[in-house]
Formats: sequence, C-alpha cells, structure tokens
Amino acid sequence: MKNKAVVLLSGGLDSTTTLAIAKNQGFEVYALSFDYGQRHRVELERARMIAQNFEVADHQIMTIDLRQFGGSALTDSIDVPTHRNEKEMSSEIPITYVPARNTIFLSFCLAYAEVKKALNIFLGVNAVDYSGYPDCRPEFITAFETLANLATKAGVEGKENLKIHTPLIQLTKADIIRRGIELGVDYSLTLSCYNPEEGGTPCGICDSCLLRLKGFSEAGLKDPLDYPE
Amino acid sequence: MKNKAVVLLSGGLDSTTTLAIAKNQGFEVYALSFDYGQRHRVELERARMIAQNFEVADHQIMTIDLRQFGGSALTDSIDVPTHRNEKEMSSEIPITYVPARNTIFLSFCLAYAEVKKALNIFLGVNAVDYSGYPDCRPEFITAFETLANLATKAGVEGKENLKIHTPLIQLTKADIIRRGIELGVDYSLTLSCYNPEEGGTPCGICDSCLLRLKGFSEAGLKDPLDYPE
Repeated sequence: MKNKAVVLLSGGLDSTTTLAIAKNQGFEVYALSFDYGQRHRVELERARMIAQNFEVADHQIMTIDLRQFGGSALTDSIDVPTHRNEKEMSSEIPITYVPARNTIFLSFCLAYAEVKKALNIFLGVNAVDYSGYPDCRPEFITAFETLANLATKAGVEGKENLKIHTPLIQLTKADIIRRGIELGVDYSLTLSCYNPEEGGTPCGICDSCLLRLKGFSEAGLKDPLDYPE
Repeated sequence: MKNKAVVLLSGGLDSTTTLAIAKNQGFEVYALSFDYGQRHRVELERARMIAQNFEVADHQIMTIDLRQFGGSALTDSIDVPTHRNEKEMSSEIPITYVPARNTIFLSFCLAYAEVKKALNIFLGVNAVDYSGYPDCRPEFITAFETLANLATKAGVEGKENLKIHTPLIQLTKADIIRRGIELGVDYSLTLSCYNPEEGGTPCGICDSCLLRLKGFSEAGLKDPLDYPE
C-alpha cells in the first residue's frame, strides 16, 4: 500500500511542482485547493486540470470566504502592485499577504489528512522569493508540524508522526522550474499571476509574474504561457 | 483605548462564559462563530443573540463546510452517542470529535485578530470534561500560541505578542457555571446539546447535555433550559 500525502494545490507553478515531487516520491496524492475569494479564480480551473493530469487519488476544493475579514490586495479591492523590482518586493510584508492564510490552509490540510489517514502534507512554500511572508518561513512550518502532532488522534495515540514536507523552501525559482521540467510538469497548465484576465492570460507585471519570468529566464527556458506584449 | 480580543463563540455554555470573562477583563470583544455543517445549527441563532446581549464590537459568522471531509458524528450521518457514563465518555477520542476543528477555528481567529489588530484570542476549551479531545489540551494551546506568533506580521516585526487565553481550561463544569452566574451570564440563551430538536430543545441524553446537567447539579443550581421528560 502506498503512503498517502495531502498536497496543497493552488494551480500555480510552485504547488504544481510540489505535487510532481510528491508523486515522484511514491505518495498516493490527495490534492486540496481553496476557493477563498481570490481575484485569480481561474487558478481553480487550472488546479482541476493539473489534479486530473497527475491522476491524484482525490481532489477537494474547499470554499472559505477570506474576504469576510478583509485586509489583503488578493481578496480586497486594493490594487495589486506592479513593476516592482526585487528590493521593493522584499522590503516589507507585501499587501498581497492574506492574514493567516497558510495557517488556515494547513489546518484544513490537517483535517483532510486526518480523515484520509495520511501522515504527510506537502506545501509549496518558498523562503527565497517570498521572504516577506511570515507564514512561508521554515520556523513557521516547524511550529505547525509540532502543532499538528498535538492536534490529532495520531498525535495523542503517539503511534505515528505527521510530517510537513516543503521541498521548495530553499530553492530559487529557476531551480524549481528545472526540477519540475525533469519531472515532466506541463507549465502551460499552471498560472501564477495575481491579477490575470478572465480567460487566464497573466498580466506579466505583478510580483508573481515578474518572479516567474525571471525564473524561466535564469533557467534558460521559455515560459510556455502567453503574456501581453 | 480598550484592548481588543477575538472570542470564539459557539453559542454553548463554555464559550458564552468565556465571552463574559473577556468582557469582564475589559476587552473590546470581536466574536467569531462558525457555520460548519454542524447538526446543532440552532447554536448559531443563540450565538447571535448572545453576541447582541453582550454588545460585542463585531460578530462574524464564518461558513466552512467540514462535512466535505467527513469523519465525525457532529457533521456526518453517524449517530451521536447517548446515555454514556463518565468512564465511557473519557475512555477514547469521541466520535463527536471533528478532525482538526480547533486548529481550523483558531486559524480563523488568528486571521480575524490580525485584521482587527487584536493581540488576544479567547477560547472556551476545557481539559477536564473533554479529556478525550486532542485539541483541547494545554500543550495544544501553547503550540498554537507559538505558531501564531510566527505566522503573523506582529510576530515577524517582533513588537508585540499574541496571546491565547483559555480561562476555563482547568475548571470543572460546576466552576464554569458558578463563574458565569457571578458575571451575569443568562444561561437560558446558551445551548450545549449535540443533537437538539429544531426549535432548540436539548435532548438531555448526549454527552454534552449530561455534562451540562451534572455541572448545574454540582453547582447546586437549576439549568434554565427545558429538557424533555
């Protein structure tokens, strides 16, 4: 019997590569996506296609309305910043930060893992490009793993430990893309833009598009997505 | 300016007493309830009435569908156990346990607290009566507090610490009721039953009703709710 893993799948480049890594390590994958009132809802269609493409054991889309609390450019009617250089991107916690988002996402992963009796959770966080996000740091992940093992039946019974895997955490975007290509990821399915057009065309100028384009460029590859001129 | 606190309010006896304690300590209260597909949805009407009664600064009801994952008698079509004695109640993790529920609830409290710039979260968990629930243990709460301070802007900036308050954690049900009565809680508004009738009449025979009735009895008080004969 294969070991089971829950993979947080946004439909972006990082989470899709993470899914490919989990599959490559032999896990039976249970993918979890969130419909959280994000502007870039076309991500969810991509997540569905990617889950199908990788023949996951199950794919759940959980609806939660993070707009109800407000406080982020990804869910509010605040403009997403564009054309920023790397120094500007990393100078402070970005306005695209959604309060406690990864804590919430990981909590649902934990519930899903507990129901499916999975002892592994894969998360595509990255501490290099997203240094401004508090909940992408390694110490946050370690603290969540500790919590997870106290929060669940498995933890109480002390039999087995739940592990949070973050295979991308120390990789550059170029490294991530190279690894994904090795594993056969079709990056034309993935969407990383914070502010895509309705059909899914990326803007090419938000932080996320700029990091992605730079990653492909540094990897010596061409991004298969079409960007506006 | 008053300090702000987010209080998790289910509409039950414990969370209502916790709200009264937070108010009594001088906090400006932001109440948060969950519509999570629980059988006992009449709780939410009570939560609304209680929030109004205590004149909270804001009350949010967050909808999340925990039924999607399954695995608990509180959200599935599994029978809620009845007529159990204390030994039976504490012998194992109960079927009424909802996987990772408190982790999920606390994560949303954290998001709400971060948006409202509140540094306090109050939670009515109890380690005496609910010894079988992994996510009601003091070590779970401590681990969440550590996580919360790593997960948020406040934590990154290292300015101020977020605190999780669990004023009931070591109290017996009788102590909780006595404390609530001192603070003027109207327990006729609260509902603790796992399986109430549509109008809100408690069953009187589930674990939660039995613990509540025993608490009132030990406190030498009469529960103001009407139970079936």
